[in-house]
Parts: sequence; C-alpha cells; structure tokens
Amino acid sequence: MKDPAAHYFKCTSRERAIFEAGIKLGTVYHQYVGIPLNQSNISSLEKAIRDSIMVQPFVVEAEVKIDPNVNNKKPGVYKYLTLSGEMLDVMVKVDYEGSVVKARLRYVPEMDYPLMYIEE
Amino acid sequence: MKDPAAHYFKCTSRERAIFEAGIKLGTVYHQYVGIPLNQSNISSLEKAIRDSIMVQPFVVEAEVKIDPNVNNKKPGVYKYLTLSGEMLDVMVKVDYEGSVVKARLRYVPEMDYPLMYIEE
Amino acid sequence: MKDPAAHYFKCTSRERAIFEAGIKLGTVYHQYVGIPLNQSNISSLEKAIRDSIMVQPFVVEAEVKIDPNVNNKKPGVYKYLTLSGEMLDVMVKVDYEGSVVKARLRYVPEMDYPLMYIEE
Amino acid sequence: MKDPAAHYFKCTSRERAIFEAGIKLGTVYHQYVGIPLNQSNISSLEKAIRDSIMVQPFVVEAEVKIDPNVNNKKPGVYKYLTLSGEMLDVMVKVDYEGSVVKARLRYVPEMDYPLMYIEE
Repeated sequence: MKDPAAHYFKCTSRERAIFEAGIKLGTVYHQYVGIPLNQSNISSLEKAIRDSIMVQPFVVEAEVKIDPNVNNKKPGVYKYLTLSGEMLDVMVKVDYEGSVVKARLRYVPEMDYPLMYIEE
Repeated sequence: MKDPAAHYFKCTSRERAIFEAGIKLGTVYHQYVGIPLNQSNISSLEKAIRDSIMVQPFVVEAEVKIDPNVNNKKPGVYKYLTLSGEMLDVMVKVDYEGSVVKARLRYVPEMDYPLMYIEE
Repeated sequence: MKDPAAHYFKCTSRERAIFEAGIKLGTVYHQYVGIPLNQSNISSLEKAIRDSIMVQPFVVEAEVKIDPNVNNKKPGVYKYLTLSGEMLDVMVKVDYEGSVVKARLRYVPEMDYPLMYIEE
Repeated sequence: MKDPAAHYFKCTSRERAIFEAGIKLGTVYHQYVGIPLNQSNISSLEKAIRDSIMVQPFVVEAEVKIDPNVNNKKPGVYKYLTLSGEMLDVMVKVDYEGSVVKARLRYVPEMDYPLMYIEE
C-alpha cells in the first residue's frame, strides 16, 4: 500500500517500522489492561487482541498469549482477575516498505517488568 | 453464591442488582472504546466483550453487538475505525439473590447519545 | 435538570441514582487503570479523575485518592508503577431528582479486592 | 541512567528512541480516549496526561493539548463529550543515550486521521 502519510516522517523505512511496532505494543498494553478475566474467557480475549492488532497499518503478523499465573496474581474473592501487563506475551511483526521488524511485549522476571523490545 | 461483601451495602437486593448492572455497563464502555476495528475483527471483539462481562459477579446473561455504521463514522485513510460508544449495543442481565435486572447500553438517535438504562 | 432520558427507565429515583453511581465507578476503574505513575504525578492524576467524574450527569460530589503503597505494589526497575484498582479510593455522590446516593470504590483488605459499594 | 534492558534490543540508539516514542504515543491514545470531558476539566486532563508521559522511561519533554472542537464533535444532550483521538495534540521528546527524537500525535485534516509521526 502507498502510504499517504509518508511525507510526515523524517526517518528511514526501518525506523518507521520500529515506530509502528512501538505504537502497536503501547496500544495493546493500555487498551486491554483491566479486563475481567478467568479461565473461561482467556482464549476469546487472546483472539480479540490479536485480531485488533492485525487491522492496524503495516502489521503482517501477531501473536498473543495471556498467562494468568505470571507474577503471582490470584483471583479475588469473586473468582476472577483483571488483565495486567505482566500476564501478556505479545509479538507483532511490522513490514514498512520491505523493512520488517519483530517486536515483543513480555514479562521479564529479572526486571520484574513487562518489557517491550525489538527482537529482530 | 453467598456474597462476602453483602454487609458493605446499604440497599435492597433489587438496588444491588441495579448497581452491579451500572458497573458492568460503565466497564464495557470505558474499557473497550478506542479499539482498532474493521469488518474482519468485529465478531471476535463482540465475543471477547461478552465473555468478559460473563466472568463478573452476578451476571447471568449478556449480549454484545457492534455496528460500525452507527453515527456516520467512516474508516480513516488507513481503512479502519476505532470503537466508539455509539457503535455498541450491550445487554446485561444481573441476578442478585433472586432480583433480576436487565440493563442496556445503546445509541439513542433522538438524544445522539449512547445511553445506559434499565430495561426491566 | 429535566432528564430527557427519563422515559427509558423502569425504576424509582433512588434506583436510578444507584445505577448512575455504579456507572461512574465502573468508568473510573476501567478508564484509568494502567496509567504510568510515580510520586510526581499522583496529585495531578487524582485531580483529573475527580474532575472527569464531576462532568458526568447527576454527580454532585466526588473524591479521589491514590495510594501507591496499597497491596504491596513496588516500582519496576524503571522506577514507576501503573495504576491498579487496588490503589484507588473513590467516592461519588449522585443526586437524581432529590434521591441522593453515595457510593465508593476502595480496596478491602479482608477480601483482597477493590470493592465498589453503596455507602448511603 | 544505565538501561538494564539494553541487551534485549537489536537496534541503534536512534531506533530505540523511536521505538520508545511510538510506545508513548500509543499509550496516550489508548489509555485516555473515552474520558468524559467538557470545558471545566480540559486543563486538568491535559496536565494529567502530560505528567503521566513524563514518568515513563527516557522521556525528557512532553506537551499535551486537547481541542474539543476538532472534527465537529458536539456535546451530547447531557452536555459533555468523551475524549477522542482527533481532539489530541501530543508532542513527546525521547532521549536514549544522546539520540533525541521528537514525535507527535495530532489530527491531520487532509487524512481525517489522528496521525502519530516522527517530527525530528
């Protein structure tokens, strides 16, 4: 697709792909954290998050896993959790005019932090 | 289920059911508005929203419909929309100790407003 | 204010006030959870949340406190937290045609749960 | 600050700064869109958004403006709006080990789209 916004950017194709990947991961974290969750709706939520990443510009691949056991979260007395950033493992692959970048959000135990980083 | 929070509430069972229904509708609106959307992910998003309502306390039924054509929203140049409150039609039924309340969020054209109200 | 939506509701004034209070608390939780936070921006965030509650229909009073130390959250290696429901203590007072309801969201230690309830 | 996550990244300093800027803009959009808004709380919301950007890693400057008149949004019958991406004008400056990147989110009329782009 010809990018109608290209002239707004002062950067290379790879830099643009990296920028778009950052946007997508920031989006996932801040859009979905807080959603009520138990075993019954994990897979439908994973699918919805993945599908919503795929509709965004320049995304060619996405994977989403939710692990409710990460970081010792326990269900409240009402038997559900709410989605936290620590539970998410998200991969997004962006292709901007042939420059392909693979970025990831996942909980990194040694930092005790849900890190967003560039894998490739 | 015996409600461990019952003693915090100064109200009847019906009032409690109404309160819970209000929480659920406020939750849907403010959790999901902003999600990237086109025809390809509407049904998975509807399912994820419905399933996340069902895991919350005292909910016995839920229905979610997203209509991207409500209120004249058009896809941007990048061919997707973001979910707005106007697109949502959500029904939630709450049962609190036998008091059943059916509440709804839907766009009301004559008010030009996504209204949350008590149907029954 | 004359309520243009009154005829959509099948309930008493007190029930309506309770419904509106539930909406407001569900809104606060699911709109704001996830916001990056440290000591430097707690007071501006408290003020913004309070002010956004006050613009909603039928709200006559609101108070918001954020306690980053609730529930043993610790800053990540990058020295900030993200807002969780456990950190919030929110009071909202709704007046619907003279029926006044005071509702609250706060972390309840014995339930290990951020409970929304009707105080008065 | 020495970055404890540096070894996770396969990229230059400038690319890292660009990635972080993308994250911050995606975060703003998807965290805040949907907040109830009228003239009375615009300035407190602008301040809270700006302050929450400033607490995130590697951010050295941020500016946030909300224009409720962008894109012909009108208050509903209940006299308030909810924040949309079109209303936001956000600048964030990131410094990663001396590589400085300035990125922006603002409504671009000719695209009818709230674009995130790299200004410098």
